[in-house]
Amino acid sequence: MSNTCEFPRPALTVDCVVFGYDGGAGLQVLLIRRGIAPFKGAWALPGGFVLMDEGLEDAARRELGEETGLKDVFLEQLFTFGAVDRDPRGRVVSVAYFALVRPDRNPARGDTDADEARWFEVDGMPEVAFDHGEILGAALERLRGKVRYQPVGFELLPKRFTLGKLQGLYEAILGREVDKRNFRRKVLAFDFLVALEEFEMGAHRPGRLYRFDRRRYEALVKRGFLFEL
Amino acid sequence: MSNTCEFPRPALTVDCVVFGYDGGAGLQVLLIRRGIAPFKGAWALPGGFVLMDEGLEDAARRELGEETGLKDVFLEQLFTFGAVDRDPRGRVVSVAYFALVRPDRNPARGDTDADEARWFEVDGMPEVAFDHGEILGAALERLRGKVRYQPVGFELLPKRFTLGKLQGLYEAILGREVDKRNFRRKVLAFDFLVALEEFEMGAHRPGRLYRFDRRRYEALVKRGFLFEL
Repeated sequence: MSNTCEFPRPALTVDCVVFGYDGGAGLQVLLIRRGIAPFKGAWALPGGFVLMDEGLEDAARRELGEETGLKDVFLEQLFTFGAVDRDPRGRVVSVAYFALVRPDRNPARGDTDADEARWFEVDGMPEVAFDHGEILGAALERLRGKVRYQPVGFELLPKRFTLGKLQGLYEAILGREVDKRNFRRKVLAFDFLVALEEFEMGAHRPGRLYRFDRRRYEALVKRGFLFEL
Repeated sequence: MSNTCEFPRPALTVDCVVFGYDGGAGLQVLLIRRGIAPFKGAWALPGGFVLMDEGLEDAARRELGEETGLKDVFLEQLFTFGAVDRDPRGRVVSVAYFALVRPDRNPARGDTDADEARWFEVDGMPEVAFDHGEILGAALERLRGKVRYQPVGFELLPKRFTLGKLQGLYEAILGREVDKRNFRRKVLAFDFLVALEEFEMGAHRPGRLYRFDRRRYEALVKRGFLFEL
């Protein structure tokens, strides 16, 4: 068997679900506007064909860079989507990756392969091409599962933050409000936050600032916990 | 783009890691002996090429049936392996699946495509072809992660079992002994076991039999818990 084809075989692509959080109410996702058919002009996940001499994650990283300008993003493999009719061009199987970044540090720009790249609120994003809505749904489900078993926020929050901001991040990921008192009690009990003697001045009373205890945070990523919200 | 090739593309395969537990000390894994080159005569995971008109999981199910005789197995997608040099025949990307079954209900037989299919103890299995050792390692890691967050045993133990047998299953999966008193206290606290008024006569004192509380078990699979052993 060589890699020119004696028999038909599926084409192989990668797609990237990059979630962002900027301190606002909702989670964001990075989409590109397709410059070519099919779905020309439609919004879609960044991605494209895997080259013969590159690994899957390398392909995802390259496509993400080419289409959005994002670099140095930690990508995690999500799932491989291979329904027979998922692409009108023929049989195309796609390995999906996902990542969490701060949009303010990763501004999107349309680059060589896409007309435009933009951050959208997940609630309120446009319809997307192919089965990318399904891929996005799977990524969201994975992320919501993860926050129950691992701390999140290190890559998403500034160095010092209030418990209100951390709660906002959890609410953005979960897509619902959580009880404030319950959230604070439980998150503090995991002991991966360090209370600082600094306060954020707000409209109401000042909020105490916290930072992550990096060692404890990383230990909990490995060991896991159960955070029921 | 049609699915005959205008440009080279990777070939796509599926591979299945089927773990078994039969009440013994170790976890087992189902391997086939390859009938063709490369690695002719070597042991390998059941698997093969994805057809153009079949989904990925369908391909995994078909290959598993053809090579080992196993049918009606619940397969879960594990990870997609795509290192450039993982197959001496050229670029081959493989979507790996894994499953848990009872070997006594799923005896292995070599079928059309493989010379032989056999259950092996994971500790003490032969060297395997390709990167199948790596795939197996990833499956084992996933399974060990899962038992910390979900109950296991429904598909693997008989209807009624002693806590000793359940502990044996956990030890087989984790690959190490766990403290008996600690195990019993914690597993009973999750409340997914029902104590029966029946006992298993053993060499020493009789052991109480338990069954799974199916509703509670399924709720815990969804909700998750943290079982630290």
